[in-house]
Amino acid sequence: MKKTLIVLMMVFTAAAAFAVEGMFPLNELHNLDKKKLQKMGLQIPLSEIKDDVSKAVVSLGGGSGSFVSKDGLIVTNHHVAYGAVQYNSGPKHDYITNGFYAPTFDKELPAPGYYADIILNVKDVTSIIKKAVKKGMTDKERFKAIEEAIKKLESEVEKNNPHIRASVASMYQGRQYLLFTKLRLLDIRLVYAPPQAIGNFGGDVDNFEWPRHTGDFSFLRAYVAPDGTPAAYSKKNVPFHPKHFLTISIKPLKKGDFTFILGFPGSTNRYMTAEQLDFYLNKQIPLRLKLFHDIIDRLNAIGSESRENHIRVAFWVKMLNNSMKYYQGVYDGLHRDKAVSLFRTRDANLEKWIEKCKSGSKYKGLIPAINQINDKFKPIANKLTIMGYMRLIPTFSAAGTLTRWAEEKTKPDLERDPAYMNRNIQRMEMRLKSMQRNLLVKSDVTLMKYFLHQMANLPKDQWPETFKKTFGNVNAADLSKAIDKKVDEMYTKTGLTKTAARMKYFSMSAKELAKVNDPLLKFGGEFANEIKTLRDQNESLAGALSRLKPQFIDLIHAYTHNELYPDANGTIRFTYGSIMGYSPREAVWYRPFTTLAGVVQKETGKKPFASPKKLLELYKNKDFGSYGDPALGGNVPVDFLTDNDTTGGNSGSPTLNGKGQLIGLLFDGNYESISADYYFNPALTRSIVADADYMIFILDKFSNAQNLIHEMTIVR
Amino acid sequence: MKKTLIVLMMVFTAAAAFAVEGMFPLNELHNLDKKKLQKMGLQIPLSEIKDDVSKAVVSLGGGSGSFVSKDGLIVTNHHVAYGAVQYNSGPKHDYITNGFYAPTFDKELPAPGYYADIILNVKDVTSIIKKAVKKGMTDKERFKAIEEAIKKLESEVEKNNPHIRASVASMYQGRQYLLFTKLRLLDIRLVYAPPQAIGNFGGDVDNFEWPRHTGDFSFLRAYVAPDGTPAAYSKKNVPFHPKHFLTISIKPLKKGDFTFILGFPGSTNRYMTAEQLDFYLNKQIPLRLKLFHDIIDRLNAIGSESRENHIRVAFWVKMLNNSMKYYQGVYDGLHRDKAVSLFRTRDANLEKWIEKCKSGSKYKGLIPAINQINDKFKPIANKLTIMGYMRLIPTFSAAGTLTRWAEEKTKPDLERDPAYMNRNIQRMEMRLKSMQRNLLVKSDVTLMKYFLHQMANLPKDQWPETFKKTFGNVNAADLSKAIDKKVDEMYTKTGLTKTAARMKYFSMSAKELAKVNDPLLKFGGEFANEIKTLRDQNESLAGALSRLKPQFIDLIHAYTHNELYPDANGTIRFTYGSIMGYSPREAVWYRPFTTLAGVVQKETGKKPFASPKKLLELYKNKDFGSYGDPALGGNVPVDFLTDNDTTGGNSGSPTLNGKGQLIGLLFDGNYESISADYYFNPALTRSIVADADYMIFILDKFSNAQNLIHEMTIVR
Repeated sequence: MKKTLIVLMMVFTAAAAFAVEGMFPLNELHNLDKKKLQKMGLQIPLSEIKDDVSKAVVSLGGGSGSFVSKDGLIVTNHHVAYGAVQYNSGPKHDYITNGFYAPTFDKELPAPGYYADIILNVKDVTSIIKKAVKKGMTDKERFKAIEEAIKKLESEVEKNNPHIRASVASMYQGRQYLLFTKLRLLDIRLVYAPPQAIGNFGGDVDNFEWPRHTGDFSFLRAYVAPDGTPAAYSKKNVPFHPKHFLTISIKPLKKGDFTFILGFPGSTNRYMTAEQLDFYLNKQIPLRLKLFHDIIDRLNAIGSESRENHIRVAFWVKMLNNSMKYYQGVYDGLHRDKAVSLFRTRDANLEKWIEKCKSGSKYKGLIPAINQINDKFKPIANKLTIMGYMRLIPTFSAAGTLTRWAEEKTKPDLERDPAYMNRNIQRMEMRLKSMQRNLLVKSDVTLMKYFLHQMANLPKDQWPETFKKTFGNVNAADLSKAIDKKVDEMYTKTGLTKTAARMKYFSMSAKELAKVNDPLLKFGGEFANEIKTLRDQNESLAGALSRLKPQFIDLIHAYTHNELYPDANGTIRFTYGSIMGYSPREAVWYRPFTTLAGVVQKETGKKPFASPKKLLELYKNKDFGSYGDPALGGNVPVDFLTDNDTTGGNSGSPTLNGKGQLIGLLFDGNYESISADYYFNPALTRSIVADADYMIFILDKFSNAQNLIHEMTIVR
Repeated sequence: MKKTLIVLMMVFTAAAAFAVEGMFPLNELHNLDKKKLQKMGLQIPLSEIKDDVSKAVVSLGGGSGSFVSKDGLIVTNHHVAYGAVQYNSGPKHDYITNGFYAPTFDKELPAPGYYADIILNVKDVTSIIKKAVKKGMTDKERFKAIEEAIKKLESEVEKNNPHIRASVASMYQGRQYLLFTKLRLLDIRLVYAPPQAIGNFGGDVDNFEWPRHTGDFSFLRAYVAPDGTPAAYSKKNVPFHPKHFLTISIKPLKKGDFTFILGFPGSTNRYMTAEQLDFYLNKQIPLRLKLFHDIIDRLNAIGSESRENHIRVAFWVKMLNNSMKYYQGVYDGLHRDKAVSLFRTRDANLEKWIEKCKSGSKYKGLIPAINQINDKFKPIANKLTIMGYMRLIPTFSAAGTLTRWAEEKTKPDLERDPAYMNRNIQRMEMRLKSMQRNLLVKSDVTLMKYFLHQMANLPKDQWPETFKKTFGNVNAADLSKAIDKKVDEMYTKTGLTKTAARMKYFSMSAKELAKVNDPLLKFGGEFANEIKTLRDQNESLAGALSRLKPQFIDLIHAYTHNELYPDANGTIRFTYGSIMGYSPREAVWYRPFTTLAGVVQKETGKKPFASPKKLLELYKNKDFGSYGDPALGGNVPVDFLTDNDTTGGNSGSPTLNGKGQLIGLLFDGNYESISADYYFNPALTRSIVADADYMIFILDKFSNAQNLIHEMTIVR
C-alpha cells in the first residue's frame, strides 16, 4: 500500500511541477510524441502548427511577434515595440507616458529601423556545407571554409531578390545547416502602445521576477508597396496581408491548461562538458560579476558627487545592473542545481558507456578533446573578458573604433569586418558624435585605471601585448602608480574627449591617423588591433569545436534517448508545456496567475509602480466589463506562468492554447530560469506571459480602442 | 445560491487567514470567549492556564522561558541564552561554534548576569496609585506623584525580602496599575546549546523572514541555595523545583492546530490617534531611516579602507542594519495597510459617535487634547532624535556619561537617575574601558560632523541650546565649515580617545572635571545635560497622556466592543491562535512548516548558511529516527508559523497546544508583522516558532543528549 502512495505522489509531482525541456525546430516536429501532446491538450495536428500557425509568426529582430488580423496587424511586447514609441515621442506627444492609439490606418506612425521577417522556406544545406570542408584542413581552415560556404549560399539567394533575406543557421553546433529564406517587411508602423506605466509596470525592479503585473504588449502593422512587395516607408504603401493570422482567445485560463509557444529564442548553451561548464561557471562568471560590481560601485561613487554626474552615469549603471542580475541568476541557478557535479557524473557515465558498448566506441577520446580546447581557451579567457569590457569606456572604445575604421575603410565593402561595412558607418559616426552628451571624463579615467589594474593582477604570462609593451618593464611595486600616471597623462593630452577631434580622426586615413600625437588614440588602437588578432586566433578553436560538438550531442542522445533539440540560435522554435506555478524554495508556492488586484497592491505612486489613475479607478469601481475571471475572485487576470522552454529573443512570442489560439504574449522568464540557458531544471524553469485577456481589457476599458478590437478575431 | 457561496467563502477566509489580535493579561483571561477558544481547540480551562501553566513560565530579562522538568530545567531561545554561551566560550572551548552539552548537573556552567523571574502574585493597586494624584495637580506634578507612589509600593514589598522583586506596571497607559511580586532566581546555568550553525542558522539574513530554518533553542537550569531560597552562584546550590513544569509534545502538527503562547512581550503602541500615528510614521520614522542609512554609508566607506577598519565598524553596521530593518518594516507595513487613513476614519467615526450618543459625550474634546500634546512634542522631536542617536559616537557618548556621573555620584544612591545607581556603575566603568577595543577616531569624527550638519539643517528655532551656543553666531554660508573645523579641533585636543584619560575623568568630582580643558568632554557634557533637561520637560507631556490615554482606550472600547487588552509592557501575557501560513503578496503563498530539507536547500557552506557536517549527513542518510512527519514527506519539521499576537520580549516563549503542552518556542515574527507593534493586520501578522520536534531531534540524533531527553516529559 505504501508503495502505491509513493507512486501516486510521484505521478502527481511530475504532473504538477515539471517543465518540458526543448526548443524544437519546426522541421523536427514530426519526431515529437504526438499522443503525449494530445493528452496534454493539443487539439490540432503538429503539421498544422508547422504549415499554418507558424506562418503568423514573425521575427522582429531582437524579439518575436505574430499577425492577428488579415491586414498585417502584429502583436508583440511593449518592450519590443518600445523603440517605435520612443522614436515618435517628443515634447509634444509623450507616447511613452500616455500611450498611443491610432484609431484609423492613416494615423499609424512610422517605426524606422523596425522590420518583420516572415519565413518563406527552410532547406537543409548540410551536405553543401560539408562538401566545402576538405580532409586534411586545419581547424582554422575548416572554420574559414564553412564561413565562406555559408556566405556564398546566402548571397546566391539574396542577389536575385532584394526583398529576400537568406541566412544559414548551424544547428546542433555544426551537425546540420539550415538555409532560412525570409521575406523582410520594411515598412512597420506603430498602431497601439499602452502607457509605460502599464506596458512596463514594475520596470527593472520586477525584471526576471514573479509575481509579475506587466501589460507588456503593443501593436504594430506591416505595410508593403501597392504591388504587394516589401518596401521602405511610403504614404502609398498598403497593409500587408499575411497568409495566416491568429485568433485571440480570452476564455478564462486555468492551471494545467496546455500551451505552446512559437518564437525566435536567441541563444542557449546546453551541450557543454562538465569541464566547460565548470570553467564558465566558476571562473568566467565570477570575473564578470566582480567587474560589474566594481564598475557599478565606482560609477555610483562618481554619480553621488552631483546631480549632473548622477544623470550621466545612470544609464550605464542600469545596464550593468541588468547584466549583473542575469549573470548572478546563472551563477545562483547552476550552483543551486549542482549542475557541474551533475555534468561530471554524466560525463563519467558517458565514458563508461563508451568503454562498454560497441556503439559507443566511436566517441572514444571525444570528451577529452573538447576539454583540451577548453584548456587552450583558459589562458586567454580572462584577458579577453577584461579587454572586451573596456568598451564600456566611451573614449577608449572610440580610440579602437577610429583606428580600426581607418584600416577597414581601405578595403572593398564586402571584405570588411561586418561592423565596418558601409551599412553600419552612419550609425557609427552618429555614436561618435552623440557620446558627448553623456561623456564624463572622470568616469572614463576611473574605469580606465580600474581595468588596467585588473590586467596588472593577471598572471604576467596572460598580460595583453599592449599592456606588456607599456608596463612590462615597471617593477611590480610601482605598477599601480605607473598605471595611474599613464592614464592621467593620456587623458590630459587626448583629443578623444572632444567631438571635433573625434570627427577629425573619423575622416582621416590610416597614414594620417598614425601621425596624430594622441596617446589615448594610440593606446586604444593597439588594444583594438590586439583584440582582433586574438579573435582571429580563436577561429581555430571554433573550427575544432564545430568538428567535435556535433559528435558530443550525438553521444548524449545515443546514451540518454531524450527528446533531442539544438541550442537556441535565433531560428524559429516550438516549445510546449502548460500553465503551472512553482515553489522557488521550501514553504513558498507561487500561483501561476496574477490579477489587477496585485497591480493595485504593488501601487506606490512612484515609478515603476505608479499606475494610471484611470486604471486604478477601473479597479476601484470593479469596472471589469466581461474580462473578470470568476476563478480569480472576479478579477481581471494580468500575467500567467507556464513551463514552456524559452529564452531571450522569445520576447513577444505568441503563447497559444491547444487550438492554436493566442492566449498571451511571452515577455520574460523567472529568476530561477535564468540558468536554464546552460542547464534546464524542470522544477523551476518558468516562462512569464502577459494574458491576452488583460490586453483586450486594456484596449477596451482603458484605451477605448474599439477599432482595434473589431479588427481582430476574439473568441471566449 | 450565490449569496450562500459568498458567505461560505467569507467564513472560510476568516478561518483560514485571520490572526487573533490581543496580548491578554492573565488577570483578564476570564473575559475571553471560552466557547470560541474551545471550538478553536483549547482543551483545558482558562483558569488552569492562569493558575498552573503560567507558573512554568519565567522572565529572563530580555526574553521568556519555561520550566520543562521538576529540577528547574528551563528551555528558551538560543539567542536568549547566547550571552551564557559566549561567556563560557574561549580559545579552549568554542561553545558558540560547537555547541555545549552538560551530561550531568556538575558539568553545567555558570551564566552570570542571567536571572529568572517567577511571578508569585499580582495585585491591582490602581486605587492606591490614584489616591496619590490630587485634584489641581499640574501634569508634571501628576507624573511625579504617580512615579513616587509606584516607587513606594515597590520598595515596601522589596525591603522585607531580598529575593523578591516588585514592580508596578501601568496597564492601558495609566488606567490600571498592577503590582507584580516576583521571585528572582539568581543562579542560572548553561545546560545545553546547539552549535550556532543550528541555533542561529540564517543569522541576520533571515532575521524577520519566513521561510525560516533556525533551531533557536537552548537549555538553562535554575539553582537555589540548599534551603530553597534564591542565591548567587555557588557550588553548594541545588536545582530549583518549580511549582509547575511543561510537558513537551512532539506529535506531528498540522495547519489549523490551536496554539497559545505565554510570555513577556516588551512594548507595543496600538492606541494612537491618527495624528499621532501620522507624525510617527511620516516624520519620525523617515528621519530615523535617513540617519541610519547615512550613518551606515559613512561607516561602510570608512570600513572599506582597510581590513582593520572593516572589523571595527562591522558591529555597528550590523546593529544599525537590524534597527533599520525594523523601522523599514514598520514603515512598509503601516503604509501597506494605509493605517493612518484607517485611523483617521476611525477617529472621525469616534467624533461622530461622541456627538450623537449620550454615553459618548464624556469623551468630548478628548481626541483634540491628545493631538495637542502631540503638537507640543513636534518641535522638539527631531532634535531629540538626532541628539539621542549621537550616543552612537562612543567618545561623544563617554563625554556625556562622565559629566553626568560626576554630578550624580554626589547624590544618595536611591535619588540618582537609575542609570547612575550603584548597581550600574561597574558595568559603566567596564564600558568606558572596553570601548577602546573598537574605537576608530576617524569614524567618531565623521559621525560627529554628520550629526552636527543634521542639526544645522533643522529650523533655527529647533536648534539644541548647546548647538546654538557654539554655532548661533556663524553665518549660514559658513556653518558647514565651522562645524567641521570645531569637530577637528575637539578631536585634536580631547583625551576621550584614550582609556587613561577616560578613567581619570571617571574618578573625578564634578568640580575637578569642570576644570579639565577638554573641549569634547565639555561639548558632550553640555549635550548630555540638555538631553536630561528636555527629558524632564517631557514629563509634563507624559503626565498629561497618563490622564488622557486611558480615556481614549475606553472610548475605543465603548465604540467597537472589541476584545480589549492593554499594550505590551513587559508583563506576562496570553495570546491564542493557530498554525497558519499566509500570502505576503498576490500569487505567493507561504506554507506554515519548514523542514530539514529546507535547511539543506539553503546550505551554501558559508555563514550564516553553513550547517554542521553531521546534520547534513543525518539528512543525506534520512537518519531521522522517529522525528520525521509523514505529512511533510517524512522530513523533520524545523520551524512553523502561527497567527498568535507577539512581539520583542516574547523570544523563548513556550508555544503550547490545546492541552497546554509545549510544541515549540517562539523566536521571531515575519517581516510583515513588524508594523503590528502599531497596527495589527490579521491577514499578515505571524509568529515564527522553533518546532519542539526539531529540538528533540537535535538533542537525540545530533547531540546524543540522552540525559536531557530522559529528564523531560516528552509525549507524542
